[in-house]
Amino acid sequence: MSNTIPLTQYLFTRLHQLGVRSVHGVPSDYNLQALDYIQPSGLHWVGNANELNAGYAADGYARIKGLSALFTGFGVGELSAINAMGGSYSEKVPVVHIVGTPLRAAQDAGVCVHHTLGDGNYRVFAEMYEKLTVAQANLNDPLTACALIDATLRECILQSGPVYIELPTDMVSVQVSGEGLSTPIDLEVPANDPETEEAIITQVLERIYAAKQPHIIVDGFCSSYGYREEANALVRATGFPTSAAIFGKGVIDEQQNSNFYGIYAGMFGNQAFHAWAQSCDLVLRLGPLDSDTNTYGFTIVPAPEIRIDFHGHSVDMGGKKAGLDKNGKVHVKSLLQKLLCQLNQSRLPQYESPLNQLKSPETAVALSSLKQDGLITQDIFWKRMSSFFRPGDIILTETGTAYTGGGEFQLPTNTILVNSSLWLSIGYMLGACCGSALALREMVAENQRPAGRTILFEGDGSLQMTAQAISDMIRNRLDVVIFVLNNDGYTIERLIHGMTESYNDVQPWRYLEAPNYFGAPRDDPNYPVTTSQAANWGELEKVMSDEKIQRGKGLTIVELMMLKEDGPEALKNLAAFVAKRNRSTNSSTA
Amino acid sequence: MSNTIPLTQYLFTRLHQLGVRSVHGVPSDYNLQALDYIQPSGLHWVGNANELNAGYAADGYARIKGLSALFTGFGVGELSAINAMGGSYSEKVPVVHIVGTPLRAAQDAGVCVHHTLGDGNYRVFAEMYEKLTVAQANLNDPLTACALIDATLRECILQSGPVYIELPTDMVSVQVSGEGLSTPIDLEVPANDPETEEAIITQVLERIYAAKQPHIIVDGFCSSYGYREEANALVRATGFPTSAAIFGKGVIDEQQNSNFYGIYAGMFGNQAFHAWAQSCDLVLRLGPLDSDTNTYGFTIVPAPEIRIDFHGHSVDMGGKKAGLDKNGKVHVKSLLQKLLCQLNQSRLPQYESPLNQLKSPETAVALSSLKQDGLITQDIFWKRMSSFFRPGDIILTETGTAYTGGGEFQLPTNTILVNSSLWLSIGYMLGACCGSALALREMVAENQRPAGRTILFEGDGSLQMTAQAISDMIRNRLDVVIFVLNNDGYTIERLIHGMTESYNDVQPWRYLEAPNYFGAPRDDPNYPVTTSQAANWGELEKVMSDEKIQRGKGLTIVELMMLKEDGPEALKNLAAFVAKRNRSTNSSTA
Repeated sequence: MSNTIPLTQYLFTRLHQLGVRSVHGVPSDYNLQALDYIQPSGLHWVGNANELNAGYAADGYARIKGLSALFTGFGVGELSAINAMGGSYSEKVPVVHIVGTPLRAAQDAGVCVHHTLGDGNYRVFAEMYEKLTVAQANLNDPLTACALIDATLRECILQSGPVYIELPTDMVSVQVSGEGLSTPIDLEVPANDPETEEAIITQVLERIYAAKQPHIIVDGFCSSYGYREEANALVRATGFPTSAAIFGKGVIDEQQNSNFYGIYAGMFGNQAFHAWAQSCDLVLRLGPLDSDTNTYGFTIVPAPEIRIDFHGHSVDMGGKKAGLDKNGKVHVKSLLQKLLCQLNQSRLPQYESPLNQLKSPETAVALSSLKQDGLITQDIFWKRMSSFFRPGDIILTETGTAYTGGGEFQLPTNTILVNSSLWLSIGYMLGACCGSALALREMVAENQRPAGRTILFEGDGSLQMTAQAISDMIRNRLDVVIFVLNNDGYTIERLIHGMTESYNDVQPWRYLEAPNYFGAPRDDPNYPVTTSQAANWGELEKVMSDEKIQRGKGLTIVELMMLKEDGPEALKNLAAFVAKRNRSTNSSTA
Repeated sequence: MSNTIPLTQYLFTRLHQLGVRSVHGVPSDYNLQALDYIQPSGLHWVGNANELNAGYAADGYARIKGLSALFTGFGVGELSAINAMGGSYSEKVPVVHIVGTPLRAAQDAGVCVHHTLGDGNYRVFAEMYEKLTVAQANLNDPLTACALIDATLRECILQSGPVYIELPTDMVSVQVSGEGLSTPIDLEVPANDPETEEAIITQVLERIYAAKQPHIIVDGFCSSYGYREEANALVRATGFPTSAAIFGKGVIDEQQNSNFYGIYAGMFGNQAFHAWAQSCDLVLRLGPLDSDTNTYGFTIVPAPEIRIDFHGHSVDMGGKKAGLDKNGKVHVKSLLQKLLCQLNQSRLPQYESPLNQLKSPETAVALSSLKQDGLITQDIFWKRMSSFFRPGDIILTETGTAYTGGGEFQLPTNTILVNSSLWLSIGYMLGACCGSALALREMVAENQRPAGRTILFEGDGSLQMTAQAISDMIRNRLDVVIFVLNNDGYTIERLIHGMTESYNDVQPWRYLEAPNYFGAPRDDPNYPVTTSQAANWGELEKVMSDEKIQRGKGLTIVELMMLKEDGPEALKNLAAFVAKRNRSTNSSTA
């Protein structure tokens, strides 16, 4: 064979072709030799401080760039990362998790090597990952390895979920044919069966034309299904009153669609809006995620009869699939494109929108109207922060008060908001922020995104989970602005149960010492470090007017002192609901 | 029923009866209400910063006390801890992992609640844990819950491994009969079948009496199998030359057994000792763990014909079980006790020990003989540190250079050394140190152990994995002495592959800033904080002569600057072996 290359080079080259520029992970003696191929393949090694943070960062990177790579060792390393992969799987994020595994001979013989359970079973970790990944590959055969890599990466992207690839130590440098690399991985989706597709479109359009009070709810899986643009086009073309589930915040361009009414928080939000939404006769849902959290206790989920749900590979009407081809699915992105072409605007329902009076006052609150020495309260804070955002920014809101608060932002064009609406693993967002900032830097360098900042709203309890992600940011010289909401513990848990219980306390860290501890450079003009604290509106105003924070260059940490009982209104309401549900039926007797 | 109590109180009371005084974990909305029962049950809530560290700490606590409890939430929390449970399972440590799960009704209906994968499958995490635990219980039925708890805790202790208990949110306060609590959980082991036992003992004694050159290798599972005392008695009674696998370091009282020859490192250690060991005609192995690491690439494992292996429930001769009762097992601790009674010392082989000249010079090296400005090198460092230890101390050595280095310690009576010899998850030991220090404090308070110190030898790369365990130590005001070996990255990986590669670097933290960042008190006489740095022998001597460090009260962190290429000799040899093995057969072509 004339054109052979090492297997690992094949794998990394494929990743590079698909837009990956960095590999997240931690060295292990089972992946060290493969790391030698990272730089020659044009990739950057992130070198995270631990595997969970590496997994979170890979997830965050993929949410911005559409694909990411995570490289850990066998057993211990991969298990440390598995919670992150659970999040990627549940929220449909395409992460390629490569695991450096022991020698094939050792595996075949069941040798008791370190990082195993000592029982000779080498499959146990792969079996766990099977439950959390959309495709798996064990590269233990040089004859099939390249085809397996291509097929697995294809599933990662097309299914938008994590995949698991085992790379045995003795396969790292095995020579394989490199000729396949000249042909890109086939990411084409088979065309929908025209009759099936047409039938669905006709049904949907008839429902649209017949509607008297339609409503569009946009949700976060639009991103996973690759139809953010189509979602925006549908909202624009129909002009229908549109809201977002919180996971879908940021999908719709809020500046260019006056028919966008913000987050729909069901019975926990604006009651007038809820009443209106409940009286609709048609609800088009785009990329819905029907978790209890995202749907505010399922109260934003319309009755099956009135809703049409657009998923990735099915359109559901009346709670049932509206039509599937012989493969059991229909590609909805393609279908939406055709639907938009066929949409006859003259047949759209004419109705007087009763909604103008329902719009929440989302205009940024001028700080000047607030008392300088007034405490920073969450009823105002989230709205106020909107004036800080600029086009191109990436904004991340951690699970907890920031998650709900982020629903109140008013977002400029071309911003991305990242939150977690099903997995909700606290600490995730600090790691994800590291990955997102890296993705942004790479995309700006390749003119794929406008220059923006990466801005994180992080809780104190969450930050403690994954604090060494700040070290990863510093090591990689990432530009990040972090607002640490110091409210003295797990406020979201307090709101649910145990408001004053010590188990909801956290150790009081000196959060602004992070750059110092994690070894940030002192006085490096290329990587400025800024820390500040605000305990009232006056101090916040002063902090926010700092040109360094506005610029977002280097590492910026702002500690915001907040009351431990405070939270956005909708969160308080939701927490009360969760608490009540958790308490229900806790009374039977044996 | 007259005497009913809430189910959670039953569970916690059982844990208290078994000696548990603290519960490790992190709050979750699925376990909050259960946390209300911790304090009333006489338990202390540790409140770790994250679940992995909580799991590691629970493991460390159990290695000292014999049982521990870990309490996490469903899905995200339990997956973050799963790597720690893998370690507990593989190294046979009894940890009770309780998981607060969603309402039974939600589980039965497959509701899409947060922390699930969104597919309605609530069993997926339990199925993962099944692979890593010795028993599982789902407390979803008030009628069986108490019996299930008792049976599961029994397996945890008798099998010495982690167990997994699901506590649905709506079962927390369910009333159950508390009457069972007046009878302790039955931990009696069924008596061995006398004939089987006698036959095994006879075989073993015959081999002992017939031996010409016997050797005892003591290993770490003696602790899991509960026969540390019997192991010591056998070593004393026979007087046979005895060595330890590194996992068994500390099991044998090194001060009272002049026939103890230290760590047996096979072909990577003392060559004269290896030659002698290979020429033995009988090797009694107590609690062996035959991992590649612990056995130095299996080079300390004697040929099956000459070895007798004492496990937990079998005695193996010639590589086969020497005899089992009808239940397929024999309780070896009981067997050892009888064997010791029957041992006829007059029939022990008489031979001239050729070993005196083989003893490694383990006497503590006087610092005064070292050059004051000489770099701290690992050939001397570990031996030198022995003079710091005192009876009662608990010493922990992190995976990496400290793991091997710890083999060179000379340990006073009644010390415990903790290392990991199969799972080897770096970062584990910082968490385990937190748990060990807590266990020690509780045992001293209950007069179960002499007052000693908790002393950790930690690598820099390892520390970064789990740094917030230091916060947990501070929060719980634990007395800990931490030596941070700052050798600029993953030295153990460098020794294997990539000595100068940047992927083996870590971000250079300012390690001594940890107390400052993690919010340690300033000037609290009840919890003094001491930090210092040593880059040469002179500085080390000065640091070690500090009365505060000698006392070990409060939080002490000593940063030791070491060369990144340096390691204990045996580790360097072993790493070269691993590297060579990993490279082997990396040459086939497709």
